[in-house]
Amino acid sequence: MTQPLALGIDIGGTNTSYGIVNRRGEILEKGSMSTTGHAATQDYFAAMTKTLTPLINKFGRENINGVGIGAPNGNFFTGEIVFAPNLPWHGVIPIARTVSEALGLKATLTNDANAAAIGEMMYGAAKGMKDFILVTLGTGVGSGFVANGQMIYGHDGFAGELGHVIAVRDGRKCGCGRNGCLEAYASATGIVRTAHEWLNQRDTNTLLRPGKGSITAKMIHDAATQGDALALELFDYTGKILGQTLADMVAITSPEAIIFFGGLAQSGELLLGPVHKYMEENMLNIFQNKVALLQSALPDADAAILGASALAW
Amino acid sequence: MTQPLALGIDIGGTNTSYGIVNRRGEILEKGSMSTTGHAATQDYFAAMTKTLTPLINKFGRENINGVGIGAPNGNFFTGEIVFAPNLPWHGVIPIARTVSEALGLKATLTNDANAAAIGEMMYGAAKGMKDFILVTLGTGVGSGFVANGQMIYGHDGFAGELGHVIAVRDGRKCGCGRNGCLEAYASATGIVRTAHEWLNQRDTNTLLRPGKGSITAKMIHDAATQGDALALELFDYTGKILGQTLADMVAITSPEAIIFFGGLAQSGELLLGPVHKYMEENMLNIFQNKVALLQSALPDADAAILGASALAW
Repeated sequence: MTQPLALGIDIGGTNTSYGIVNRRGEILEKGSMSTTGHAATQDYFAAMTKTLTPLINKFGRENINGVGIGAPNGNFFTGEIVFAPNLPWHGVIPIARTVSEALGLKATLTNDANAAAIGEMMYGAAKGMKDFILVTLGTGVGSGFVANGQMIYGHDGFAGELGHVIAVRDGRKCGCGRNGCLEAYASATGIVRTAHEWLNQRDTNTLLRPGKGSITAKMIHDAATQGDALALELFDYTGKILGQTLADMVAITSPEAIIFFGGLAQSGELLLGPVHKYMEENMLNIFQNKVALLQSALPDADAAILGASALAW
Repeated sequence: MTQPLALGIDIGGTNTSYGIVNRRGEILEKGSMSTTGHAATQDYFAAMTKTLTPLINKFGRENINGVGIGAPNGNFFTGEIVFAPNLPWHGVIPIARTVSEALGLKATLTNDANAAAIGEMMYGAAKGMKDFILVTLGTGVGSGFVANGQMIYGHDGFAGELGHVIAVRDGRKCGCGRNGCLEAYASATGIVRTAHEWLNQRDTNTLLRPGKGSITAKMIHDAATQGDALALELFDYTGKILGQTLADMVAITSPEAIIFFGGLAQSGELLLGPVHKYMEENMLNIFQNKVALLQSALPDADAAILGASALAW
């Protein structure tokens, strides 16, 4: 008995993960390869072809409906990656076309946050929802907005840049060159920046005083779970900035839920507690106490593959 | 020869406008009645029935596909108006059901800004667009967000509250009880509030110095067209607040265009010039120079009727 399958590929800054997925969202086989360490872009695609061709042959090319690809700054409409600061390549890379030609299968691209949103909608915390927001809290802040059961791509495929909404007018510098973007505060790197600022300004006793290397979001998480006051305040502040911004987003798309995904989201209530409190405090009355804040129901590694694969259906 | 028709009703704070519309968006007959001055809600509906029944009979009940109603705070899903501060009624009014029973026709409700967005999409400046934002700048600020060719209603029908996005953190008080809402700055009443604040603070020579009654948005418009520096600065400031907020909205839905509708929008370039300048200045690079700012292509009075009528198809 053959069943229709999809190949999901998640291109990350360090690793490229892939998996063969069936319509029920079961990953039948998965693996990963390095994204970096290739002399040129074509060497990366050659390595991908060498890795994936045996996998495709194993499950039968005729059974594979198509390839779905998630990548930072991936554009659904053009199939291109455009100036992705977290990938080793520069300029515009025609990912969908290149992968399609290399593997001999139809290929569709979207950005990693949109792929995660589709994964949650088909197989995860957003199953059955028609209106929700997926927020990825990792090195940066990404998002996928779903309305009427459809991903909002915008007219050019670039919609969903929640990380570059101005959270603090004239605030700190963002990697994009502007000031005060949400990403500069509510990402793993953002909370670390806040920690450094506060440690420079204050004389507080905290587990976060440097000694063994530079501060990481993981260290702040660990200190907070041990009751460290500064670490807890860092989560409160980060949650405030994020909650205020999300209150504004709710006013626009009125989602049933906001789903959090990625490294910083794994801090769970430490972060989502403050996010919830400040979001409710800042929300127009008609939206209060209606929006669920949920953690992703998919394991991080799988969600990206599942989301990407869902593009192939 | 009969053609399919729709009855569009726009319920405003002062007047209720209505019209019989064909599929091409031609208003075959229109009129209006007072929204206020009725002792009770049922008297208003009785007056509406008395006014509209002859119109329905004239065009033939069998030719009328249905009734579309636009009203402030109208909810598409429930057919109810919920706590509309600008209407004479309080609490929850089941408009769609009441009108349907009174007129014997299927009736659908949405809020006035959504109705205007649908009108622009079917017959106006957004014809053929699948991703755009309609912004109404009147007494308040309303909006309709369209993505993938569909109105974003949100899970509960309350989406599109652009007027209650926080434009100035800890800014001036809004009618909703919160601080710094866009509506408190970028509406007809908002620009008048700014004018009052500045006149109290400054000693500038301006045409806006009170003398003949209180300041209106129209007076500020007229002064600006005569080159009054303070009036021009008022448009610049209002455009700045609006442009900054729209830059954030573009990052979420990446629209092809933003269409402006309502009294304050009729100031045209006086307002849209600054809006455009500050929106571009505050926008993430991938969105720059791509979003058209347009004025509504429908006469104000007709757009509301046309938009409402479009719900009936």
